[in-house]
Amino acid sequence: MSDLDRALASADAALDASLERLFAWLKIPSISTDPAYRHGCREAADWLKRDLASIGFAAELRETAGHPIVLAKRPKPGAPHVLFYGHYDVQPVDPLDKWETPPFEPRIAAGPGGKKIIVARGSSDDKGQVMTFVEACRAWIAATGALPIGVTLMIEGEEESGSINLPGFLEEAKDELAADVALVCDTTMWGEGRPAITSSLRGLVFEEIVIRAANRDLHSGMYGGAARNPLHVLAKIVADLHDEAGRVALPGFYDGVAETPDDVRAQWSTLGLDAGSFLGPIGLSLPAGETDRMIIEQIQSRPTCDVNGMWGGYLGAGAKTVIAAEAHAKISFRLVGEQDPAAIRQAFRAFVKERLPADCTVEFIGHKGSRAIQLPYDSAALAKTRGALQAEWGAVPITIGSGGSIPVVGDFKRTLGLDTLLVGFALDDDRIHSPNEKYDLESFRKGARSWIRILAALAQ
Amino acid sequence: MSDLDRALASADAALDASLERLFAWLKIPSISTDPAYRHGCREAADWLKRDLASIGFAAELRETAGHPIVLAKRPKPGAPHVLFYGHYDVQPVDPLDKWETPPFEPRIAAGPGGKKIIVARGSSDDKGQVMTFVEACRAWIAATGALPIGVTLMIEGEEESGSINLPGFLEEAKDELAADVALVCDTTMWGEGRPAITSSLRGLVFEEIVIRAANRDLHSGMYGGAARNPLHVLAKIVADLHDEAGRVALPGFYDGVAETPDDVRAQWSTLGLDAGSFLGPIGLSLPAGETDRMIIEQIQSRPTCDVNGMWGGYLGAGAKTVIAAEAHAKISFRLVGEQDPAAIRQAFRAFVKERLPADCTVEFIGHKGSRAIQLPYDSAALAKTRGALQAEWGAVPITIGSGGSIPVVGDFKRTLGLDTLLVGFALDDDRIHSPNEKYDLESFRKGARSWIRILAALAQ
Repeated sequence: MSDLDRALASADAALDASLERLFAWLKIPSISTDPAYRHGCREAADWLKRDLASIGFAAELRETAGHPIVLAKRPKPGAPHVLFYGHYDVQPVDPLDKWETPPFEPRIAAGPGGKKIIVARGSSDDKGQVMTFVEACRAWIAATGALPIGVTLMIEGEEESGSINLPGFLEEAKDELAADVALVCDTTMWGEGRPAITSSLRGLVFEEIVIRAANRDLHSGMYGGAARNPLHVLAKIVADLHDEAGRVALPGFYDGVAETPDDVRAQWSTLGLDAGSFLGPIGLSLPAGETDRMIIEQIQSRPTCDVNGMWGGYLGAGAKTVIAAEAHAKISFRLVGEQDPAAIRQAFRAFVKERLPADCTVEFIGHKGSRAIQLPYDSAALAKTRGALQAEWGAVPITIGSGGSIPVVGDFKRTLGLDTLLVGFALDDDRIHSPNEKYDLESFRKGARSWIRILAALAQ
Repeated sequence: MSDLDRALASADAALDASLERLFAWLKIPSISTDPAYRHGCREAADWLKRDLASIGFAAELRETAGHPIVLAKRPKPGAPHVLFYGHYDVQPVDPLDKWETPPFEPRIAAGPGGKKIIVARGSSDDKGQVMTFVEACRAWIAATGALPIGVTLMIEGEEESGSINLPGFLEEAKDELAADVALVCDTTMWGEGRPAITSSLRGLVFEEIVIRAANRDLHSGMYGGAARNPLHVLAKIVADLHDEAGRVALPGFYDGVAETPDDVRAQWSTLGLDAGSFLGPIGLSLPAGETDRMIIEQIQSRPTCDVNGMWGGYLGAGAKTVIAAEAHAKISFRLVGEQDPAAIRQAFRAFVKERLPADCTVEFIGHKGSRAIQLPYDSAALAKTRGALQAEWGAVPITIGSGGSIPVVGDFKRTLGLDTLLVGFALDDDRIHSPNEKYDLESFRKGARSWIRILAALAQ
């Protein structure tokens, strides 16, 4: 029996214990964006630190201005070294009443087709995915007493709230984080049984605006007709953000967006990602994006704009005839190619100001901003990883783009000079960021086995 | 000393005790629209019933499917009889953090220019106004042992949530409610020191819509660009509701809207209600309504449309890249002339459906609906009331239209055959429906004195 086979067997034998550990971690409510969960974030970090220490990593919490970063190292002199990145923080859980069971009480349930799923906030994004890697390390160490290569884990607690303290930490800890390649487990497979390596990521600009009109809420009977309603102003701005063809209407928005090469588009068109297969499962049937683009382009290679939250006035039960003093919106842009986040933020702010009546004001609250990223197709690590995934899944892994943003990938390149391999085992129906988030038990089990193989492959 | 003078003197002497009673009533949180305050509503009704019984009214609570109605009667054989209407329920208090002191802890404070104001939810709308009439009755009875005319008070508890059980009660209690004229104290003066009688009221259609797209909240990284965002759909609908000239864009919306006669417009134009005087105090400067109308028309004689609440997606702190499954809006229309509430509701629903992508759905929740009303200018009661108000305030009362709706006025005409005199002592800056609602102490004091005089005048 090879070392690899022994490590795989060890992982299989320890599956129940692995799940117990994952559940213990999932129970800790580590919502980074909400100050009420500050303690939960630290607890989640601390749990992971202790778990990694228990399998021989030199593990510690590194303080930041926000939530701490878990840094754990197990070097192997003479062997390659990888930097594994993930995050222990999770999304907020609202609307809470849409959860079938409480979000921080993990459970195994029967999913579509009777498959077993792990249901909890963070089960997929990203605690479940992080634990596939941790369990792979544990299996190697349990089976052989060692890892095939050197490993540093850097697990942050602010991914869901903008990773604002991570770039500073990378600068500061640059030398400690030295590695040959970075690994990230925060992405999806192409579909059940079909592994994928993500090679491009969309960037992100996230803006919040508050439009203010009157100096107080007004009675619409008394003032309606004469007083400016900031909700109308906001609606007009949002309505203007897209044109009839589904394009984003900010001037200069498409600067730096390259056309996808014809051969790549041709390959994509064979993947069968149509409205029925992509939108059907979420209850939709009509692609809402640019009318002249395939769905796979709309979600991977084209920039977009979405309102993520919008509110103002009376939100309670029943009728209240009020004209609100304020209107709020959270709006994000997904970027591709060479689009410049700063330029797009500027263009958006100008776009809003142009549409603002002279007696209203607007406040801009800037959140995340990151460029899109494209990884080189010809790296040796990519080829080794493809081989390892094919061995585990018996299917050729697909190299895809991701519609989401993982800003740290850009930071790894810029600050640490590292290319990143994005390998994840989540599925599109995992409901990440939504109620009843889940992770397939098979994603967890075969995810850990995949990393066991990838660690071996990278040692070659 | 005449009976009238004795009653006026009695009211003046008892002002402190009057305020104590008002404060006791204001302390009871009777928010009718929120089921959490069901008990507070009943307590407020019960308090008033006991107070009216204490001055010799046959007072009782009449149950409805919702909050009870206070009905109190003190007939005077051979004399005219009036039906006085008001409401003991109050608006919700959100945003609570904008209140300088808790909304149900009434206090006397210094207002603009050092005048004394009563600050509390309901101080103006409508508990303070109702108590001007109750105190007037008390003063007559204390000073002379009797009222100059017969009086029935009907004080309901659902005005702020649509008065849904009142029309049924009027039908049911038709005979008990017989009177010569109805009086309502729920409107404003023209300005400080300048009394007004309201002779026209805008009607109201209040609709709530829920637009649903995907069957769950989505991650905008994964689905953004392809998945329909219901907040965009909603924004487009709201943006389309008004045209460039500020007119409401529903087809047929202006059917039944008569032009105001030239002489009335000419009179209005002398009142000096311009953007500076009307919008300045609320921090605005540009009239937002129909561009070819005076402000007084925009708020009194022209129909309007306002979004009173709008929400969807992530409303918490920080960034969350979600595409919401639902978008909500509460939208109201103010009606004038012969506009038909049912037709406008229909037109609005058709307008929304026309703008709905085929894979989205919309749910309509219909709230209030009432026609506009115009009272006859030549009634004897109106002339007597004008005289009484002039005697108290030393200024000619202005006959105005109201931008708000008081649906009960239409019901009084239809069900009871009664014309209604709307006399109120609120001021435009009373912040009704808003944080820090207030009622001028002078409104309260001279309001009670005004009713004392009106009761005497109506006895003639």
